[in-house]
Amino acid sequence: MRLIYLDNHSGTKLDPRVYDEIVPYLTEYYGNAQSMHSFGYKSTQAIQKAREQVAQLINANDNEIYFTSCGSESNNLALKGIAEAYKSKSRHIITSSIEHVSVLNALKRLEQAGYEITRLPVDKSGMVCPDDLKQAIRKDTILVSIQHANPEIGTIQPIEELSKIARDKGVLFHTDAIATTGIIPVDVNQLGIDLLSLAGSQFHGPKGAAALYIRKGVRIIPQIEGGVQEQNKRAGTENIAVIVGLGRAAEIARQEMSDNHIKMTNLRNKLIKELPEKIPYIYLNGHPQNRLPHNVNFSVEFIEGEGMLLFLDEKGIYITSGSACTSKTLKMSHVMSAIECDPAIAQGSVTMTLSKYNTEDDIDYVLQEFPPIVQKLRDLSPLYAYFKKTGKRQEAGPGTNYEHDHDLEE
Amino acid sequence: MRLIYLDNHSGTKLDPRVYDEIVPYLTEYYGNAQSMHSFGYKSTQAIQKAREQVAQLINANDNEIYFTSCGSESNNLALKGIAEAYKSKSRHIITSSIEHVSVLNALKRLEQAGYEITRLPVDKSGMVCPDDLKQAIRKDTILVSIQHANPEIGTIQPIEELSKIARDKGVLFHTDAIATTGIIPVDVNQLGIDLLSLAGSQFHGPKGAAALYIRKGVRIIPQIEGGVQEQNKRAGTENIAVIVGLGRAAEIARQEMSDNHIKMTNLRNKLIKELPEKIPYIYLNGHPQNRLPHNVNFSVEFIEGEGMLLFLDEKGIYITSGSACTSKTLKMSHVMSAIECDPAIAQGSVTMTLSKYNTEDDIDYVLQEFPPIVQKLRDLSPLYAYFKKTGKRQEAGPGTNYEHDHDLEE
Repeated sequence: MRLIYLDNHSGTKLDPRVYDEIVPYLTEYYGNAQSMHSFGYKSTQAIQKAREQVAQLINANDNEIYFTSCGSESNNLALKGIAEAYKSKSRHIITSSIEHVSVLNALKRLEQAGYEITRLPVDKSGMVCPDDLKQAIRKDTILVSIQHANPEIGTIQPIEELSKIARDKGVLFHTDAIATTGIIPVDVNQLGIDLLSLAGSQFHGPKGAAALYIRKGVRIIPQIEGGVQEQNKRAGTENIAVIVGLGRAAEIARQEMSDNHIKMTNLRNKLIKELPEKIPYIYLNGHPQNRLPHNVNFSVEFIEGEGMLLFLDEKGIYITSGSACTSKTLKMSHVMSAIECDPAIAQGSVTMTLSKYNTEDDIDYVLQEFPPIVQKLRDLSPLYAYFKKTGKRQEAGPGTNYEHDHDLEE
Repeated sequence: MRLIYLDNHSGTKLDPRVYDEIVPYLTEYYGNAQSMHSFGYKSTQAIQKAREQVAQLINANDNEIYFTSCGSESNNLALKGIAEAYKSKSRHIITSSIEHVSVLNALKRLEQAGYEITRLPVDKSGMVCPDDLKQAIRKDTILVSIQHANPEIGTIQPIEELSKIARDKGVLFHTDAIATTGIIPVDVNQLGIDLLSLAGSQFHGPKGAAALYIRKGVRIIPQIEGGVQEQNKRAGTENIAVIVGLGRAAEIARQEMSDNHIKMTNLRNKLIKELPEKIPYIYLNGHPQNRLPHNVNFSVEFIEGEGMLLFLDEKGIYITSGSACTSKTLKMSHVMSAIECDPAIAQGSVTMTLSKYNTEDDIDYVLQEFPPIVQKLRDLSPLYAYFKKTGKRQEAGPGTNYEHDHDLEE
């Protein structure tokens, strides 16, 4: 069966060149990078090389790269680590309403611990308004955390402008750049970033390999404590194989970014142009121009995301509804809610994230298989029947579950 | 060159059978376990299988196993997670003075946050005295955290007895069983454990794969927050390949434990018996009977650990001095200090940790190469010259660095 994988934000296929780099560190070089013998030193060297490769991808210094186990850990370390380090000074943090759940839930925890959190709204295209940030900054603001791009709707924020506002007032700026690093240019100096989260699983590196960039001089309290690894900022035996993989993936991404960018943008544009020609009553979410080159998000009216996912799955097409971390909850995503997407329409939202491995054939296959699936689901939909009969849309009825996804559990 | 790897506590060689299990999850099945399509479901199933395999190794239920990225993370989650969950009730925690740095430093952080920590002493063999625990427990004690065995000196604690004392008084019991799980039998019910840390890198699983056992009903606050992974207790995209590897390693360890136990014990006993016959003035640390089957720790008088490590390295023999996470600091280990090892002698302490892959040939090679190295170093040692001349030992002079290793950094 065909495998058309369009769920790349949930994790990408490992580049075979990355795999080749990883294998010796699984089989042969299993020394601990902290061991004081030459066998361990092989691992120390490999980690250092990876650190330089990752640093180069984002124009940082290698001693500003701290390896972690996943993007969520990087985000938690950035937010809780900064909050704890600067708590004697002040307790106010600013974020946006469309951040990843690892940012939102870490901040909820800090809120419970007495910090004050301001969540900036976004406009209908998902953009944070710089003036809103300007007004939100207070004398006791420690940190602003705004994502570089949203993985669900693809909108890229004006980070350069936002970070300037924060830093001009002496406020630290963190960006969750998990959806962008390795995909579009990310330069911590040009963007004006103090802390930045990235994850290898987004650009054909291994899962379990991520990093936090921390600008030299920024204090942070480690969240996993113990040994001296990662300059005392993140304890635990280094997962050398995946770190090596992250490094190689970073190198490849840097070298091939511009070609991949063009390729993915063309395929994405084809979907954005041709899907609405083949399927009526569908609406693109996110910013039409300032969006990730590999992201497509449509709300398909009268039907639900789940049905589309299941029928596409039967055809070997893998996409998602909402974000990977919350997709199984089947609630309306907080992102859709923040961009004020009509709840009745948001229910039918699907995200496709392309990768460098997708081809025009893949897209043609999607354009061929998707429309009849939508038609089949609409034929079963009472909402669509009502619309066809009356030309009017029904109001959302009671019992429809429009809660935000994934509230913090205790 | 020969590779005699006797630093297995710092990380073991991946079992080739584990490697075979991992590979398809690096190359072929890269779906996100949280994705709602059949490709992601392959990962969901693989994780579930691994969870059952790990549960079986320690006689737990599969829904009591929470995957983490390393043993240090498991320890941090256990201690900080319990402390936060029960803080409204009470703020006292008991531990021992020879725990791993990931326990000690996590507790130092809690101490700074207002918790009270009691650190129980150990006797000269490294054993915690049950009466000491009995006396330390107060009405406001939340948790006792005592390691199952010490990886540096090999001493196995009387966990069954200790946990009974705690639990009879309604106090939760955590054990860092990273040095024991997969090596000797670990049964959470027989040992009477509420929380237990384990790591795959100790029993020929991959690095980056660890778990925390949390008994059903025990509340805990997650330390990495975000998505719904690991029953909302540990967010972040699952590192499927290493989780699968941990599962398979657990299965193999369970099936082959008793054979490996006998094999390693025999090799260990040979070292413990024959090294002192070939090298005068060396002293076994740790408990002579209640010790890990693969651990040997000797203090070699008149010389320092570093010199031995370097000369052994030249012969292809890899051992350690202190623990892996702190070995590069070259300070006297807190474990040696706690067992009241004479500082002058502790400087010359080395740990050898065997694995199932070591052979009698390896041990014969060590018995052949190690004694002349010690002799060579002693010939250069002023302490030894003084002893040979006078028959007396010099007092430790000023300038000798006997601080504890790795104090918490800010």
